Amino acid sequence: MMRVPYAELLETLQSALLKLGIERRRGELCARLFAESSRDGVYSHGLNRFPLFISMARSGVVDIHAEPAPLASAGPMERWDGKTGVGNLNAHRCMERAIALAHEHGLGCVALANTNHWMRGGTYGWQAADAGVLGICWTNTCPNLPPWGASEPRVGNNPLVIAVPRASGHVVLDMAVSQFSYGALASYRARGELLPVEGGFDTAGRLTRVPGDIENSKRPLPIGYWKGSGLALMMDLVAGILAGGWTTHQIPAQPERETRLSQVFLAFDPQRLRPGTSASDIAEEVIQHFRGPGPGEDGPVRYPGERVLATRHENLEKGVPVDPSIWRQVQDLAA
Amino acid sequence: MMRVPYAELLETLQSALLKLGIERRRGELCARLFAESSRDGVYSHGLNRFPLFISMARSGVVDIHAEPAPLASAGPMERWDGKTGVGNLNAHRCMERAIALAHEHGLGCVALANTNHWMRGGTYGWQAADAGVLGICWTNTCPNLPPWGASEPRVGNNPLVIAVPRASGHVVLDMAVSQFSYGALASYRARGELLPVEGGFDTAGRLTRVPGDIENSKRPLPIGYWKGSGLALMMDLVAGILAGGWTTHQIPAQPERETRLSQVFLAFDPQRLRPGTSASDIAEEVIQHFRGPGPGEDGPVRYPGERVLATRHENLEKGVPVDPSIWRQVQDLAA
Repeated sequence: MMRVPYAELLETLQSALLKLGIERRRGELCARLFAESSRDGVYSHGLNRFPLFISMARSGVVDIHAEPAPLASAGPMERWDGKTGVGNLNAHRCMERAIALAHEHGLGCVALANTNHWMRGGTYGWQAADAGVLGICWTNTCPNLPPWGASEPRVGNNPLVIAVPRASGHVVLDMAVSQFSYGALASYRARGELLPVEGGFDTAGRLTRVPGDIENSKRPLPIGYWKGSGLALMMDLVAGILAGGWTTHQIPAQPERETRLSQVFLAFDPQRLRPGTSASDIAEEVIQHFRGPGPGEDGPVRYPGERVLATRHENLEKGVPVDPSIWRQVQDLAA
Repeated sequence: MMRVPYAELLETLQSALLKLGIERRRGELCARLFAESSRDGVYSHGLNRFPLFISMARSGVVDIHAEPAPLASAGPMERWDGKTGVGNLNAHRCMERAIALAHEHGLGCVALANTNHWMRGGTYGWQAADAGVLGICWTNTCPNLPPWGASEPRVGNNPLVIAVPRASGHVVLDMAVSQFSYGALASYRARGELLPVEGGFDTAGRLTRVPGDIENSKRPLPIGYWKGSGLALMMDLVAGILAGGWTTHQIPAQPERETRLSQVFLAFDPQRLRPGTSASDIAEEVIQHFRGPGPGEDGPVRYPGERVLATRHENLEKGVPVDPSIWRQVQDLAA
């Protein structure tokens, strides 16, 4: 592991994108969203995912020139076509639009079809909270998780993001409905560690904490077993129906071909219905109670987003940790 | 266990409510919502919960005469005051209003403060789906679940409902964010069974499948461990902020004093943005893929709401199962 200054990371990603031929303003934003993911400690969807993104742009799965556009509108609710463009740019544009609709109507909803992997979902939660509104968004994915009772992947791990603005640090939940991502399983395996809790089945159908056994069986667990399985189905249904886009079973299961995702972006402006009320003050009070009197037997109770903020500060100060071989690869793309 | 014809159950609940002094039309709806919960197999929030409801009405925690009223409106979004009225009537009224707003604006949102326990959350999901719209709603609760890393209950199990209409049977998820409710723990214990998966900690802080040990420690698990813990926090925050109502830490933890809950009701009318598109057809196709080719090693894969419908048919045909002592108690209330 080595550390690279944030500005250097950002600039390198930007150069690589401009070399690819993306329009400058779009390339700058796309690079920033990738760089911020690594800066915030979500390494799997920052620099580490960048080479796959580039190869998908080259293969044409991602159209780097396509701009998302509205297809239909009904006041606070809009349906957009992502035109298989850049996933993080499409998602950022749609949350931006949902925020504008929320300022106008109290709440706003944009349903987006035909888009690509949005990379780090939390990006759009922080975006909403930075704008002073509450944000909820989710995406479907390719089939990568067996429903409860099945052994083949037939639902997606469909990340869900919920964000509430708070002056001393936004509260942002960014979770997939699988208990552990394949990236997390690989990390535990590489460190020679067991999972902290059961994470899936082995090939014999037994629940296990051995990460490699789950990678082999391709049977990770949904959160809450049958509950997360049902939740994944509902998120796919609502996204597909509202966006008029593909549902999980239609999406190619190979990472490098995963495309035409459906996503939902909701924003709520609490000021519209409660002028003068501070969402931040309420969040502050609730977080104090959530944390409780002090560290328990298992250490401090952390609220969603707390660790992100701590990592961000550390990485801005010391540099962003990068995998040397991936960093070299991206430097070559930028050169 | 004995079975009672649905019509008799409904009539008895209605008589008990009218004897209490509730206005006739409201009493009829309230009785129907209780009766339908038992009819659909959600016994814990149907007849079995009715005596507690009556005692809360008598103690004044639930004001049976209070009608909910709008406090503020911004087009598709409204804030309502539940006036500590009847929980299921308040929730039904607010989902009804969200549905009307969805027909008008494409989506509608009602945030409700100062309400009481909504009993079975699924009620309002089926209500939305019956009206042909997508519904999402959730409630906060008193602190009944320790956040991940803590040993005292400081978040609620905050049930979440997501519903999609489907001609051959609506798809309705109705789940609390705890892995097992206290009602479920008691049932497993009474049957002398272990939980099918780990459901919480024992008093020594070890994960366990022994239901009684979790009842003793009061440390049930959130779904997905740290994930459900975060999700519970976010649901409480969003509901409290939008409704301008109490958040979990303010709500008394004793069941008979739990009041002033905050709830959110969202409805989406997909026809507004996609005229001619059938949500039901999409749901049908997705459910077929979800179920897969046939029963796997663990039996059939069930979609959310499937078992409800099967139970409903059985109970309408054979009568609704009731606990004889509770049934006698409610008969006495009605006499």
